[in-house]
Amino acid sequence: MSRAAAITSLDAPFAARLDAVAAETERLLDRLLSAQPLGGETVRPQRLIDAMRHASLGGGKRLRPFLTVETAALFQAPRERALMAGAAIECVHCYSLIHDDLPAMDDDALRRGRPTVHKAFDEATAILAGDSLLTLAFDIMVRPETHPDAAVRVALVSGLARAAGVGGMTGGQMLDLAAEGRFGMQGPRSESDTLTMQAMKTGALLRLACVAGAILGSAPQDAHDALARYGNALGQAFQIADDLLDVEGDAATLGKSTGKDAANGKATLVSILGLDGAHARLDALVADAEDALAPFGAAAGTLRAAARFVAERRA
Amino acid sequence: MSRAAAITSLDAPFAARLDAVAAETERLLDRLLSAQPLGGETVRPQRLIDAMRHASLGGGKRLRPFLTVETAALFQAPRERALMAGAAIECVHCYSLIHDDLPAMDDDALRRGRPTVHKAFDEATAILAGDSLLTLAFDIMVRPETHPDAAVRVALVSGLARAAGVGGMTGGQMLDLAAEGRFGMQGPRSESDTLTMQAMKTGALLRLACVAGAILGSAPQDAHDALARYGNALGQAFQIADDLLDVEGDAATLGKSTGKDAANGKATLVSILGLDGAHARLDALVADAEDALAPFGAAAGTLRAAARFVAERRA
Repeated sequence: MSRAAAITSLDAPFAARLDAVAAETERLLDRLLSAQPLGGETVRPQRLIDAMRHASLGGGKRLRPFLTVETAALFQAPRERALMAGAAIECVHCYSLIHDDLPAMDDDALRRGRPTVHKAFDEATAILAGDSLLTLAFDIMVRPETHPDAAVRVALVSGLARAAGVGGMTGGQMLDLAAEGRFGMQGPRSESDTLTMQAMKTGALLRLACVAGAILGSAPQDAHDALARYGNALGQAFQIADDLLDVEGDAATLGKSTGKDAANGKATLVSILGLDGAHARLDALVADAEDALAPFGAAAGTLRAAARFVAERRA
Repeated sequence: MSRAAAITSLDAPFAARLDAVAAETERLLDRLLSAQPLGGETVRPQRLIDAMRHASLGGGKRLRPFLTVETAALFQAPRERALMAGAAIECVHCYSLIHDDLPAMDDDALRRGRPTVHKAFDEATAILAGDSLLTLAFDIMVRPETHPDAAVRVALVSGLARAAGVGGMTGGQMLDLAAEGRFGMQGPRSESDTLTMQAMKTGALLRLACVAGAILGSAPQDAHDALARYGNALGQAFQIADDLLDVEGDAATLGKSTGKDAANGKATLVSILGLDGAHARLDALVADAEDALAPFGAAAGTLRAAARFVAERRA
């Protein structure tokens, strides 16, 4: 049975669970972003709130919240808490998209088939909306609703800061810009450097989304390590799939432009390994992700399907 | 005795204490920003780290760390912890300056007499350096070195997120841009709306810097409230002094351009109250700040001097 057929047979329950988390995350973010930010004020930064809502509502697979909800479920951690932590992580993801799309960065006009924030609003509003979503992420993560134990919230905040910061997402984004030759410097070109860049840029936050379930569930260290390994493999698979979509994908289906990596002369695992090599690497990563989940047995079936979904997605 | 003479007589010990915190904060930030962000990596986002260092080292009065150190001292909280919390708050301050200076925002080329980050580097690097400093702020605040008790760190992280976010600094910055007529909308024009905008834009972080000492010292609620009142008055005084400097100040002394508010047709307390009215308001705010400190007696002498310093600074 081909992998495509295998995923089709698994698709229905997995897709239903993914959609359920997406709907719950949408409702939660809608509530978190409609709360009055200050009591009794006479003026509100309504345009800023509108821009934050534009960037974070009405779209997205909500893969990161899904990973947090499903890993938390392995330890019977309450779903409402996992949704809060997932919403915090999703705010970081959405902020990064706003800033990445800015004219000075990737200069994209389209995101999820809709105008990017600086197109729908303006650049100043987009910069501030990104800043505000990043800040809101920590606000959400540190709330008692995320976990009653302050030590758990501290671990989540610390994990989020490390995943999002200079040793993670922003550092990886910087290396990615350098890889395009942006600063007149040689960016990462080797497979090893490219893997490091991607592990920082997209991998760190995806891994945190997986590890967050273990933190919320006060899981033992070996379970924590297993989910970190799963998250690493899933993050690499996600990035290769993304790079493949940039080569093989359809802009209309994706809701964003394609062919950018080649146009920018950027090294990716696809340009380094070739198309066949990249597809083979994807299969190996899915196998590694599944292997990491072995200790959890049948309970991790949805997470196994998630790894295949990430590798084989077409949008 | 005139207020100017009064501050001169207090200046020496106050200035020495301010300088001491500035030097300690500089050393701490230098250490926090030189740490290897990831173990074992082969590529580092060195340009990003350089930009973060450009923005946060080598300048600044370090007023916010000073307020945290001095309020923490009222409760005998260890100075090293207050310096950590102060460094986190300073990172938020420095990030906000990077983003405020961007071409799409205030479009400033000069900050503390040096090129702004997007001038010294480039816009993409400046956006990412701001994002990274904001993220680092939470990373620092949540570390065990800031306080051994996770509940205290949670209170600090929560306070920082509220002060920096849409209900605080970024929301206030948005209202400030609207006040310039940026979005074709009527911005805050009344005294009340202008006070709200300023309480969010600059007041919230200054107040947090004061309240952080009470949080670090596990102070009783009335002491917490007294420092919040002090921080409110000091924040308003800081902003009026800033607006006065924009009218009366010297660009060379300030290390930034002046006359921007009038050029932008922006309502400030100075344009609303007039120069004499603004100076009178400043005196009343200093008196209120001093009054709020009454419960702390002689121990709060330095904080009293800080209120006068903020009101009467010339740079």
